[in-house]
Amino acid sequence: MTIRFETHSEMLATAIKALSARDFWTPFSEVPSGKIYGEAAKSDGLAAFDALIGQRFQLTDHPAETHIGAEVSPWGLKLDLTYPAATVEALIDASAAAQDALAAAPITTRVAVCLEALVRLNRLSFLIGHATMHTTGQAFPMAFQAGGPHAQDRGLEAVAMAYCEMTRFAEAAVWKKPQGKHDPIVMEKHWTIQPQGIALTIGCNTFPTWNSYPGIFASLATGNPVIIKPHPKAILPLALTVRVLREVLAEAGLPRDAVLLAVDTPGAEKTKQLVTHPDVAIIDYTGSSDFADWIRQNTSRKRVFTEETGVNSVVITGTDDFDGMCANLAFSLSLYSGQMCTSPQNIYIPEAGIDTDKGRKSFDDVTSGIIQAIDALLQDAQTAAGICGALANPATRDRMSSVAHEGIVLRQSTSPATNVVTPLILKGRKDGPQDAECFGPMSFVIPCTSAEDAIAQAANIARTEGAITAALYATDDKLMSLAGQAFSRAAVNLSINLTGKIYVNQSAAFSDFHVTGGNASGNASLTDPAFIAGRFTRPMRRWPKRC
Amino acid sequence: MTIRFETHSEMLATAIKALSARDFWTPFSEVPSGKIYGEAAKSDGLAAFDALIGQRFQLTDHPAETHIGAEVSPWGLKLDLTYPAATVEALIDASAAAQDALAAAPITTRVAVCLEALVRLNRLSFLIGHATMHTTGQAFPMAFQAGGPHAQDRGLEAVAMAYCEMTRFAEAAVWKKPQGKHDPIVMEKHWTIQPQGIALTIGCNTFPTWNSYPGIFASLATGNPVIIKPHPKAILPLALTVRVLREVLAEAGLPRDAVLLAVDTPGAEKTKQLVTHPDVAIIDYTGSSDFADWIRQNTSRKRVFTEETGVNSVVITGTDDFDGMCANLAFSLSLYSGQMCTSPQNIYIPEAGIDTDKGRKSFDDVTSGIIQAIDALLQDAQTAAGICGALANPATRDRMSSVAHEGIVLRQSTSPATNVVTPLILKGRKDGPQDAECFGPMSFVIPCTSAEDAIAQAANIARTEGAITAALYATDDKLMSLAGQAFSRAAVNLSINLTGKIYVNQSAAFSDFHVTGGNASGNASLTDPAFIAGRFTRPMRRWPKRC
Repeated sequence: MTIRFETHSEMLATAIKALSARDFWTPFSEVPSGKIYGEAAKSDGLAAFDALIGQRFQLTDHPAETHIGAEVSPWGLKLDLTYPAATVEALIDASAAAQDALAAAPITTRVAVCLEALVRLNRLSFLIGHATMHTTGQAFPMAFQAGGPHAQDRGLEAVAMAYCEMTRFAEAAVWKKPQGKHDPIVMEKHWTIQPQGIALTIGCNTFPTWNSYPGIFASLATGNPVIIKPHPKAILPLALTVRVLREVLAEAGLPRDAVLLAVDTPGAEKTKQLVTHPDVAIIDYTGSSDFADWIRQNTSRKRVFTEETGVNSVVITGTDDFDGMCANLAFSLSLYSGQMCTSPQNIYIPEAGIDTDKGRKSFDDVTSGIIQAIDALLQDAQTAAGICGALANPATRDRMSSVAHEGIVLRQSTSPATNVVTPLILKGRKDGPQDAECFGPMSFVIPCTSAEDAIAQAANIARTEGAITAALYATDDKLMSLAGQAFSRAAVNLSINLTGKIYVNQSAAFSDFHVTGGNASGNASLTDPAFIAGRFTRPMRRWPKRC
Repeated sequence: MTIRFETHSEMLATAIKALSARDFWTPFSEVPSGKIYGEAAKSDGLAAFDALIGQRFQLTDHPAETHIGAEVSPWGLKLDLTYPAATVEALIDASAAAQDALAAAPITTRVAVCLEALVRLNRLSFLIGHATMHTTGQAFPMAFQAGGPHAQDRGLEAVAMAYCEMTRFAEAAVWKKPQGKHDPIVMEKHWTIQPQGIALTIGCNTFPTWNSYPGIFASLATGNPVIIKPHPKAILPLALTVRVLREVLAEAGLPRDAVLLAVDTPGAEKTKQLVTHPDVAIIDYTGSSDFADWIRQNTSRKRVFTEETGVNSVVITGTDDFDGMCANLAFSLSLYSGQMCTSPQNIYIPEAGIDTDKGRKSFDDVTSGIIQAIDALLQDAQTAAGICGALANPATRDRMSSVAHEGIVLRQSTSPATNVVTPLILKGRKDGPQDAECFGPMSFVIPCTSAEDAIAQAANIARTEGAITAALYATDDKLMSLAGQAFSRAAVNLSINLTGKIYVNQSAAFSDFHVTGGNASGNASLTDPAFIAGRFTRPMRRWPKRC
């Protein structure tokens, strides 16, 4: 066995400390630099990516009756990729066959496999960056970061939390119950970490690795074999992940089939059949609440962890840096064309305007300040493509058209390149319903009666529709405190007065709990103990101790 | 404010240590002795109980439109008790009104309230013992222990785990992200413990406090107001609990309505209305899987913690203490007439018999050894009543008749006193279906092809129907290891070779995780981190740090 716990045990220990302290830490640099990743990493990554194009993707010994795949790069590159594909029954059988060996492996072995896989994935970050770029439509810098090191961070976070949870109680105890004058009753007790069963991770189109790694690594570390069902339009980043994990499993003397790829094509998804299979015990899902509801309705006893639909809000009540605020929001609204689960959608502004360092600004002043900042940011077509990325799904464009048709357009979306679009800004109705998530580069500026009303509306929609992030601009301590309470009650993470190079969209592993699990935007939080704890149980054996 | 965290902080610290070590510990003595509880405790408890009979139960300022109650003592005592009763809407409104103050209270205040309430409940153990006896049918010694100190232990265990979970991560952090040659980005971050919402605890008839305290105390400590819906036939023990909790809440300056009693009567239960109310976020339920399924089908997004139906097994493959084994099993089968969730039901024995210290014993020898031990144990009517208790529910007797009618009776149940019945022992069919839970004093001895087959059958029924406990008698290390693996995979706690005064039915707080959460007998384990973690979230506020 070549995989040793000691190899990365220091990284694990530091990760565990970071989880408690929640300050900045990462072992996986987000800078796509040769100095960090090796001078050849960039060109090697691109070459490795190019070598995959037009080929059958190879997964050693993976169950396969056929090879399928229908990914289309939002950037126009012809992919023509296929992957080994098996029936749901064949996948379940293979997963079940791997179950006992994985469960029987020591905690340290499973954790070592996860750590080694993450380190190897990190070395492949350029390749994974290209794979992510051409399946999600992210521009390369973001695809590198979100698909590579940031996803690896979230994976490591899950492994560290899993290790904590599996080792926090005694594995064995001598239980000695006094019996007054008589001899005590003495029992020996031993506990096992018993995995729940087969785990299914359902990936999404926009963040195939980032949103999937926590569930994959949490399940695997706790001994549950994982079937990874990528979005049919974003398979490659997860196929690469499956390849690395299977390699490392084999090197550790564990069955490769402890990690499987369930590939399918649009219109012929295997998701429902996998979700409802009786042997699937754990489901990690990222996607719409509609499908999450379907999962819940069809899986009463399974452990289901979700990240779902939400409406993220910005509340603007005042600022001491008007230009900084507008620039910051312009970037947040443009970044990956609102296709992040953390992207803001609704912007609540008092109709009477706000006080700023540039004097009093009316509602229209604030709106046009933001719009001008967007225009300036995205003026150059190449820069626009670099920030906005490409639309992952054609449906987004249809949604934009229909939203634009129905509303008052304040900023028309432009398209500086194929599939690249800039933000559409609309005026929302005062007190009108702004309830649905409009996924993509669409935002609504909404006039409110007062600053307090703006906070209340934003917190309310978070409570009813779900929200992952909220942003507040305020100079008044009372308003900050009011908003803090309101968003806390709505279980939303709140960013206050962001200017400069930190954005409401960003969520840092080891520090920010991503999604709180307290509103409709998801029941799981990355990575809190609840995300881990239900994935295994602790059955006991006890017997009278022989003296 | 008279409730101080420091008062019981040492008890809390010791409880937390015990949780990790999982050795024997309890601050609440199970011995109903004047030396421990005070010389007057016994008579005071009885007098206090007598004073309640025939009265309207008083709960200061509790919402009430009327007073209802229809409890009937299985022991024949006329109770004639009524309790303040309000509509579900009135209860939800009162609970919601208490929500913000409870959430805003410091962790230490809520935990102090829980600890003080447990200590006061402990002082009332004799009163609660009588209340438990006359609602559940338990004999007094068991009612005292299970209704009093053992339930308090489980409550304390939940509070200790809740305290750990709420305090395990930094409350605040300074996050400093390097930016190469530029200044780092520095953010201040603060996290809040945000309760999920109103919690509902649905009590059961047989262990009103023991099964309810974990959920009640876990929810309350984590800031969720609790509505306690007792079984309509076992209200008094929980009404006393509600009274104490409301008293302590008021003394801590918190709203009494953070704990409410939802009383109802058989046939007019409020359970479904409470379960489906949109403001109820957490549900703790003990009872049948049929109703648990109904809860799951009607509450897709709520946090539901269950203890449900199961079939507990004994596997007999050999023993070096035949008489000790028979005596131990006789007690386990008789104790509270099989009305414990931990009572054994199916006894699997190789048809070819087993090796023992008394020589080879045939299947029939083993069966009659157990039956003779039961007969000897319950010979005296008073002893029988003291061990078997009384039947809580007349339906149990009907079930016994129908089971006896259909099967081969090996030991007829007798009735040494009104509502007191001794175990009915039947012969199960070899390889026949023995799938359903038969709640009550009914057990099946089942002939098996071999010891291995006996283990496989018992583990299999645990896997498919759920099981909380299993017992094994074996002298062969290989069989012990095989059974250990099989029951671990079925997520059942296994007791091996119990003789003497320790029984498979017993589950000790701070050491035994009660129910693993890994099979159909329940999704919750008392008290593991998963039982706590989902009851609250950790929303964050972050802002750029001013230098």
